[in-house]
Amino acid sequence: MGFNTNIPSSEIDFRISKIQSLLANTGIDAIILNNNANLFYTAGYIFNGYVFIPQTGNAIYFVRRPVGLSANNIIYINKPEQIVEHIDISKLSTIGLELDTTTYSTIERLNKIFPNATIANASGILRKVRSTKTPFEIECLIQSGEKHAKTYSQIPSVYRDGMTDLELQIEIERLSRLEGCLGQFRISGDSMEIFMGNLIAGENADNPSPYDFAMGGAGLNPSLPVGCNGTTITQGTSIMVDLNGNFTGYMTDMTRVFSVGEIGELAKKAHKCSQRINHELAEMGKPGTPAKALFERALAIATEEGLDMYFMGHRQHAGFVGHGVGIEVNELPVIAPRSKDILEENNVIALEPKFVIPQVGAVGIENTYVVTPEGMKSITNAPEEIISLD
Amino acid sequence: MGFNTNIPSSEIDFRISKIQSLLANTGIDAIILNNNANLFYTAGYIFNGYVFIPQTGNAIYFVRRPVGLSANNIIYINKPEQIVEHIDISKLSTIGLELDTTTYSTIERLNKIFPNATIANASGILRKVRSTKTPFEIECLIQSGEKHAKTYSQIPSVYRDGMTDLELQIEIERLSRLEGCLGQFRISGDSMEIFMGNLIAGENADNPSPYDFAMGGAGLNPSLPVGCNGTTITQGTSIMVDLNGNFTGYMTDMTRVFSVGEIGELAKKAHKCSQRINHELAEMGKPGTPAKALFERALAIATEEGLDMYFMGHRQHAGFVGHGVGIEVNELPVIAPRSKDILEENNVIALEPKFVIPQVGAVGIENTYVVTPEGMKSITNAPEEIISLD
Repeated sequence: MGFNTNIPSSEIDFRISKIQSLLANTGIDAIILNNNANLFYTAGYIFNGYVFIPQTGNAIYFVRRPVGLSANNIIYINKPEQIVEHIDISKLSTIGLELDTTTYSTIERLNKIFPNATIANASGILRKVRSTKTPFEIECLIQSGEKHAKTYSQIPSVYRDGMTDLELQIEIERLSRLEGCLGQFRISGDSMEIFMGNLIAGENADNPSPYDFAMGGAGLNPSLPVGCNGTTITQGTSIMVDLNGNFTGYMTDMTRVFSVGEIGELAKKAHKCSQRINHELAEMGKPGTPAKALFERALAIATEEGLDMYFMGHRQHAGFVGHGVGIEVNELPVIAPRSKDILEENNVIALEPKFVIPQVGAVGIENTYVVTPEGMKSITNAPEEIISLD
Repeated sequence: MGFNTNIPSSEIDFRISKIQSLLANTGIDAIILNNNANLFYTAGYIFNGYVFIPQTGNAIYFVRRPVGLSANNIIYINKPEQIVEHIDISKLSTIGLELDTTTYSTIERLNKIFPNATIANASGILRKVRSTKTPFEIECLIQSGEKHAKTYSQIPSVYRDGMTDLELQIEIERLSRLEGCLGQFRISGDSMEIFMGNLIAGENADNPSPYDFAMGGAGLNPSLPVGCNGTTITQGTSIMVDLNGNFTGYMTDMTRVFSVGEIGELAKKAHKCSQRINHELAEMGKPGTPAKALFERALAIATEEGLDMYFMGHRQHAGFVGHGVGIEVNELPVIAPRSKDILEENNVIALEPKFVIPQVGAVGIENTYVVTPEGMKSITNAPEEIISLD
């Protein structure tokens, strides 16, 4: 029995072949992966161990746990030093390791196993391969988007006057979990942490956070200074909901805004501007479009409408307007002013042009899109207008 | 204004001084920290940036985000290369970096900033310092333990016949969040992931998982193969609840067992054995006790009672019976057969002698204890017997 997964072996083979083409292009003889997101990508399952992928030939899965697997591409090991007992290292002059996600100590240990090989950075190869989704992956993302939208459609049913932002978030978390949300919010790198996403109500939207998310919020505790801060939801404020879309191992990213009382013309104008930016960028984003051109267009629209001082934050501004999503929430391409990424067919991109309006809160929508030759198609389909909770 | 935290500056000073004594002992001139858990420990707040701690003198916080701070020990930077503009590097011949938690690429970058310094591993120093808690930290843990116990006391009120394990977990998650659980489940290292902890019902307890947790479970999706698997809770089975105790930035770890119908004598005997192991180990665990002696005693009791084949798993066995807890769930000391750790006063240790009984499920309790000269005192105080949900 191989890994307990719903991902077909033909799909895994296709992913491995995508990686192998890039290995051939970059002159890397083999890679060894141990990052959980990359294990899931290349095995269809997260295990404790390593994936060995040669430039040609079959991938080998070196497994510590779980026990009980039996397949011709699975070899049990207790420690990584045993990998070399099972492969011909004489032909490996360049080995790719995940230098951007694996700890220094682990890389040093792996490096010693291959004393005669040059170590190359495999992180970029995996990021690149994972940025263009397979049809199977797009299907997973479409499923996540549908459940994500279904969760959000139930939000008005759990709102009660006098709630805190946290109380509302807890009820939405429950709805989301009942729809099948797995909870785990995967973020590449170790500097950003968040629990089930970000709900920010009213003035808390203007509290800067340490993280590189589009929006901040003070959070509930200095150990996690982001998101809702326990404030009571008051009249004349907006509530931005940007919660976890991981229903399939693949995460959609989706934001909608709710209001209590009258939030004023500026906030409404900014929200409509966000819708306009989403729609114009979606039309513009095709294979070959530079990512930075999308950012520039978004900023130009915000500026044209006199809203640039509120764009992507007010006291603190985020430096991007969109990002790839998939197994993790911060994949390629990055839609930012200095991005060198060029859009490719089947990139899956979340666009989140948002505004923070002082005294009111955050407004704007976020959709997740698939890049097609005809433009970017949203897979997070739900009404985009501000929804009144009164 | 400094960091937005409830942790007094005298507490931070005390922690820094603990680190500085170890730096003096190990001949490290200064350390640079960027791991979130260590930022929280040394700043009382998680920010985007680095903490510089010299062997003598004041710590300096190099901050990228959030904006708006102003304190005489905070310096804003855009990139780590700017750190050296603000410190006298001529006196730094050995710099400690977190080699066990920071990525290879980041360490290489930091290393280049100090071309003439030797790089040492600071990870062990922080693990060691954090393993003996300050009175302030113990107070945080006591608070977490109280809320953790209060959450568990409400579990019978949300159980309904015919529920799945996931449905029950979702209701407990909600109770926990309403009690103030922050959600974030911090685990050192990047190989273990879990969402809000582990609820395993019935035979799912015997599904091995890839993670080094005490118990497994198949999980809901191959992207997170641990914990509840959506099975309906049936008569004659146990439900083990081991959910998130992070209410204060400091996590308690606590397990209780519930039953539906008659679970049989073997399961009941094993549960009582777990209680016995907890109590005997708690009495035995004092400053100076070798961690491995606790493991040996636990295994000896399980063997004496004829339960060793079920101890810490059945198809797959975990290799430890306890672990330090604090900001993260896997701190020092480790209570395992080959552990070299010696208990110290104010270690905070979770003991989790558990058993997996085929066809019934997992049984056993877990408490979090503070090591004192009189033994280990539990801070997760709640009834330890199996609680019937019928």
